[in-house]
Amino acid sequence: MAVKLTGETRKTALASIPGWTELMERDAIFRKFVFKDFNEAFGFMTRAALIAEKRDHHPEWLNVYKTVEVTLSTHDAGGLTEKDIALAQAMDKLAGA
Amino acid sequence: MAVKLTGETRKTALASIPGWTELMERDAIFRKFVFKDFNEAFGFMTRAALIAEKRDHHPEWLNVYKTVEVTLSTHDAGGLTEKDIALAQAMDKLAGA
Repeated sequence: MAVKLTGETRKTALASIPGWTELMERDAIFRKFVFKDFNEAFGFMTRAALIAEKRDHHPEWLNVYKTVEVTLSTHDAGGLTEKDIALAQAMDKLAGA
Repeated sequence: MAVKLTGETRKTALASIPGWTELMERDAIFRKFVFKDFNEAFGFMTRAALIAEKRDHHPEWLNVYKTVEVTLSTHDAGGLTEKDIALAQAMDKLAGA
């Protein structure tokens, strides 16, 4: 089972995803992606959904037209783990961000 | 352009989508769909996205694993219109709800 990231490991992991911010109210990370239109936004979501399903690690996400707001955290671990960092990296790559 | 629903027309329209509730804070409707798993939830979203894109009328929606919380309102009209009722009906049909 994935363990919560702490200390230097966490610091290094977060440094690899500079577009993401840590939430204040929960041990989770957040990023808002803005695309050209709904086609691009939902296209991104579809590609990310396939990755998430394959890894059995899913995002919490809100889509409003061309924006996608993503929150990542690992429920089993009660906080941020390597699984979240890896999914964040994959999403950044998909978005070209 | 779609006009905001009022009076008897609005009442009749809302009666056709009993699973939806009116939001207090905005002139919009809301429904939470709960599926078996992420596969079903995102499958629903994908089918609904194709309908939304074809109609050029898009939902605001939050997906957390097997749940999809949908808010519908017509931005151009500043509130609830026939477009929202029609999209709500289509989503109910897709979800078998």
